Amino acid sequence: MTTSKASVAELKKVLRDCAFLAPYSLQVVSCDSSVCSLLVPYQPALERPGGIVSGMTLMGAADVAMWLAIMTLRGTTETWVTSDMKTAFLRSGREVDVICTANVLKSGSRTMYGTAESISASGELLAHHVLTYMRVE
Amino acid sequence: MTTSKASVAELKKVLRDCAFLAPYSLQVVSCDSSVCSLLVPYQPALERPGGIVSGMTLMGAADVAMWLAIMTLRGTTETWVTSDMKTAFLRSGREVDVICTANVLKSGSRTMYGTAESISASGELLAHHVLTYMRVE
Amino acid sequence: MTTSKASVAELKKVLRDCAFLAPYSLQVVSCDSSVCSLLVPYQPALERPGGIVSGMTLMGAADVAMWLAIMTLRGTTETWVTSDMKTAFLRSGREVDVICTANVLKSGSRTMYGTAESISASGELLAHHVLTYMRVE
Amino acid sequence: MTTSKASVAELKKVLRDCAFLAPYSLQVVSCDSSVCSLLVPYQPALERPGGIVSGMTLMGAADVAMWLAIMTLRGTTETWVTSDMKTAFLRSGREVDVICTANVLKSGSRTMYGTAESISASGELLAHHVLTYMRVE
Repeated sequence: MTTSKASVAELKKVLRDCAFLAPYSLQVVSCDSSVCSLLVPYQPALERPGGIVSGMTLMGAADVAMWLAIMTLRGTTETWVTSDMKTAFLRSGREVDVICTANVLKSGSRTMYGTAESISASGELLAHHVLTYMRVE
Repeated sequence: MTTSKASVAELKKVLRDCAFLAPYSLQVVSCDSSVCSLLVPYQPALERPGGIVSGMTLMGAADVAMWLAIMTLRGTTETWVTSDMKTAFLRSGREVDVICTANVLKSGSRTMYGTAESISASGELLAHHVLTYMRVE
Repeated sequence: MTTSKASVAELKKVLRDCAFLAPYSLQVVSCDSSVCSLLVPYQPALERPGGIVSGMTLMGAADVAMWLAIMTLRGTTETWVTSDMKTAFLRSGREVDVICTANVLKSGSRTMYGTAESISASGELLAHHVLTYMRVE
Repeated sequence: MTTSKASVAELKKVLRDCAFLAPYSLQVVSCDSSVCSLLVPYQPALERPGGIVSGMTLMGAADVAMWLAIMTLRGTTETWVTSDMKTAFLRSGREVDVICTANVLKSGSRTMYGTAESISASGELLAHHVLTYMRVE
């Protein structure tokens, strides 16, 4: 069992420093070695017609959650970028907060693979994601 | 050979009516039956650290390009939603405009499958996407 | 909590009736509602050069494991076919038995989505799969 | 424009040397720099119930076609393995020969990305595949 190489406070700082993520208001809820959970607060500005949480919001949240989950294994100074990401949209979330939790399933020094789940406040699985990250030197 | 069931002007109107897409400033460049190309203008606000066009921007553009490509086959009144989307990030685009072109490869009355390519102004393939859409009744 | 709508004995019979799967010698290990585990016995005839379990073998096992997992929810008489399948090959398995376990994450009357894990006898995750099935009427 | 680094004759020899592929009777139809086409002859032994060409057969053919397409860029002596593969099954092929053609879209010295199309003898797109390969040293 390894301990996390990044604290919630450190991951929050990483998020704050990413201007392009500001519109999403993502909040780090918790983290542990290889895992990170984000809150995606419901915002009318991010909805599709009909009050549905947009797919872009869920994909963005999953991408960030995995990025931070990797930091729990590798710290916050390396550069890791998404090389592949697949999302299955399983249910529409209507005017709901979402918790997005990423899990690293295979950890390497150059590539990482994992899953993320976007779950509504009422416990429904809205989207399931699989992601591959690569380290850039 | 079928003719497009949506004009560039109609697709531009669809885009204008989507408030959540406003930050991306996507512009419809051209369309034809089963195909739609968007311009993703470079914007510092959408970049990752280092001036790299963010993956979220490319995924969002591909998702929208496919949505509009479907409208060239089915018109603009039906409701189609993304059910699955995979993106391979192949190269980083630095401070570049991007053209994202979606192609429907299999067209059905309930599901659509296609690809999209995000290509930099200098002609490099930055990302390749495959998408499945489903019609909601 | 639902009970499985197919027993291990019934799933074994389904497998026996599939001539095209005979070369893989897949064996049903266990099942429960929404879950099915298969044993993929190591066979030199299925290996790639170097004694590596072939990717085709793992993909085939995951596809079948999900098919049977769906039967635990829907019984054995409906026709379900794979509509989409993605596999991440994470480690090479050399001359090992593999256990492939599929889990349905989203169950619908027309589509099913789930994951499968191909794990070596020594406990290593060799491949991770995500699958979508559709029901054919 | 580069010329192919492997001839049809060389690729045929590579296939003949893979015992685990023998059941599929794959035949190299043509190749060029970054492209390879295989014939997948219809065989009752590979069918699913109802005379449908099995998904495993199409996935196997696409995986091999991409492997050989990489050889047209890199020659036949390096070791390249599939790291990720996704297949969308778009139509059922019934008792038909299939041509599977792989195209490398992004060529690197360590990773390759491309698509493959499985097309029936009557010209229908049965399955669409995207694949990532990695070089093993």
